[in-house]
Amino acid sequence: MYNRNLVTGLRVPRPMSKYPEILHRRTVARSRLFRVEAVGLRFSNGAEVEYERLGGTSHGAVLIVAVDGQGRAQLIREYAAGTGRYELGLPKGRVEKDEPLLDAANRELQEEVGVAARRLEWLRSLSLAPGYLAHRTEVILAQDLYPSRLPGDEPEPIQVVPWALDDLEGLLAQEDFSEARSLAALYLARDHLRAREAR
Amino acid sequence: MYNRNLVTGLRVPRPMSKYPEILHRRTVARSRLFRVEAVGLRFSNGAEVEYERLGGTSHGAVLIVAVDGQGRAQLIREYAAGTGRYELGLPKGRVEKDEPLLDAANRELQEEVGVAARRLEWLRSLSLAPGYLAHRTEVILAQDLYPSRLPGDEPEPIQVVPWALDDLEGLLAQEDFSEARSLAALYLARDHLRAREAR
Repeated sequence: MYNRNLVTGLRVPRPMSKYPEILHRRTVARSRLFRVEAVGLRFSNGAEVEYERLGGTSHGAVLIVAVDGQGRAQLIREYAAGTGRYELGLPKGRVEKDEPLLDAANRELQEEVGVAARRLEWLRSLSLAPGYLAHRTEVILAQDLYPSRLPGDEPEPIQVVPWALDDLEGLLAQEDFSEARSLAALYLARDHLRAREAR
Repeated sequence: MYNRNLVTGLRVPRPMSKYPEILHRRTVARSRLFRVEAVGLRFSNGAEVEYERLGGTSHGAVLIVAVDGQGRAQLIREYAAGTGRYELGLPKGRVEKDEPLLDAANRELQEEVGVAARRLEWLRSLSLAPGYLAHRTEVILAQDLYPSRLPGDEPEPIQVVPWALDDLEGLLAQEDFSEARSLAALYLARDHLRAREAR
């Protein structure tokens, strides 16, 4: 069992085990959006396993915490086909080929919220379910907002819900707020802004 | 645009739009673990769209924040086939048919960490990517830990890394910690325990 040295803040040692050897990779199912890949692995102890993973077909995704002058993040409520209900969460979208991350974030903001940002910064890259999804989402903090709208591809108007970053507890009481990625990004942005204020 | 009434704490009104009508659902791809479903929807404004979603084949999943007597959550480091690297995160696993959530959490803890908990409580249900995943993960807080091991199905031994809940900032500095779900659950557990202490 490893123990982090809390006094010196030393990093936890990386595992000594080598990366597993990839024995084979093959596509076992494919649809318009998804590609399922079977990967055969041999671990350094000799154990062999076959996993299934979902390959991404896109160039990544951005999730945007757009904070207005009153310290409120711009949430949206829209229909989510995966869970089959309206969900409250942060605006997000796919990054287009060769599109810089911050440009993608500012474009999605204008499409989904109707604002653009003069100040954009990358906060963190998040995985969703690293055991079977290759997908990663880049969390972008957007500030200095001003009205600006671009046409989106949503089937119906998106509801915008500004929510105070200081009231994440109240947000957790909303039963249509469930997304781990949005929650993690809101905590990250809140702590980031508090730390900046404290300096 | 909706504004939450911050003074009275009134809930944001639910969208007035009715749920979209489901025109069709059909399986368009299937593998050992995954099933991709195409869903045709007609929104209340008449717009028709077809989405793809990934159906879950399991009975749900648990993610466990197991906090020891020194306020440290038990993290694990294991190979993740989705991202193709070793990932640091919380222990988790699938719930078996007819298995109570807290039993599933205590079983996974014994398989992956080698401890059991005398005190288990459900904190929250999280979605991962509600736009295309039906999947939900139940966050369980586990306390009053004691050594107890059950055999797991992992191909190699899992590394256990206790991490102080008071040092999530240090955790964010670890480049192999990326999972949105683990990060959200750690923030939730930390705030939950702090609020309990404050009472």
